Amino acid sequence: MKIAILGGTGKEGKGLALRWAQGGEEVLIGSREQSKAERIAGELNERYGKEVFRGFDNRTAAAEAEVVVSTLPHQGHRDILENIRPELEGKLLMAATVIWPPGPMDRQSAAEEAQTAVGDQVRVVAAFQTVSALALQAIDEEMEEDVLVCGEGEAAEEAIQCMSKGGLRGIKAGPLKHARIVEAITALMLKINKGYGVKSAGIRITGLD
Amino acid sequence: MKIAILGGTGKEGKGLALRWAQGGEEVLIGSREQSKAERIAGELNERYGKEVFRGFDNRTAAAEAEVVVSTLPHQGHRDILENIRPELEGKLLMAATVIWPPGPMDRQSAAEEAQTAVGDQVRVVAAFQTVSALALQAIDEEMEEDVLVCGEGEAAEEAIQCMSKGGLRGIKAGPLKHARIVEAITALMLKINKGYGVKSAGIRITGLD
Repeated sequence: MKIAILGGTGKEGKGLALRWAQGGEEVLIGSREQSKAERIAGELNERYGKEVFRGFDNRTAAAEAEVVVSTLPHQGHRDILENIRPELEGKLLMAATVIWPPGPMDRQSAAEEAQTAVGDQVRVVAAFQTVSALALQAIDEEMEEDVLVCGEGEAAEEAIQCMSKGGLRGIKAGPLKHARIVEAITALMLKINKGYGVKSAGIRITGLD
Repeated sequence: MKIAILGGTGKEGKGLALRWAQGGEEVLIGSREQSKAERIAGELNERYGKEVFRGFDNRTAAAEAEVVVSTLPHQGHRDILENIRPELEGKLLMAATVIWPPGPMDRQSAAEEAQTAVGDQVRVVAAFQTVSALALQAIDEEMEEDVLVCGEGEAAEEAIQCMSKGGLRGIKAGPLKHARIVEAITALMLKINKGYGVKSAGIRITGLD
């Protein structure tokens, strides 16, 4: 599967890229500037020891991919997504963006904003908000934490299927609107990381069987 | 240690009572009606096979205990707590109450309401909101999930110490105000339980070492 990671030059994007590469998937790193994407793809190839990452501008990455992940920063994510709407059409978009600091729950989450920006021809789910970039990048260790996935049934299933190829367990946590809660959880994770002097805190859902 | 569980006749209260009894602690079940508390204490004694639970009205339970847990329903919890303020003074109060349905995050959480009701001579933390009553009651199995604890440093430490006697791992998740986020998480847990056909979903924090 070809997976594009928009804004994929950041810590979270790199971590996801490495996990999917490990699962044998083809990862396209997207960035505003193609040169930056190429540089980061080069770094990842070197680190991974195989030429499996390629860098593109966000639009080209989205166009080439079957599935798209957005790890774009909140600032500007709507404009970028709206701009590449034709390239996203008919695809699954996993939105990892978080609005920081978390605000009132009657405000739209970043994932809901993404859905509005791309229109209803794109299946949007919220995912990866609470996942530690450090844990993602430590590819010699299995992911212990889960990915909370918010979105409508089929899209959520598809996202869970896709992330499982990167060794990540997705958990259906309700409709897209629940991304508001998941975004707020990032404030807890920050406190937990600080309090325990780590950067790797994550959430695992227990009791499912 | 003597631990009072106010509103302890419900599922969550019974579960906590069993866990602490298993740890050798003395549990006082509190209820609005003493007779109901006595009945539930009797049921728990029978189930546990030892006479370790006693039932009281909420006020007496609080007065007798060193540490107090509130599993009171949201409706009326403030009045009850305000009423027994003298009995709570100088003690640790672990507030498990949740406002349902979760609302905007600029509204106080139940734990913050509890703090207001009991005044600043009581150390209040939010705890147990996300914990499955079913998992608590299954005392033949170790608790896999954690307890998110929101409150100021020392009180949170004290709460974590206390719940560890019942085999529960508490995780410091920020100030009391973060109870708003933890309350909202209960909406996720409900969806997860529904989606996976269980009643035992819980949260474990990974990556702490």
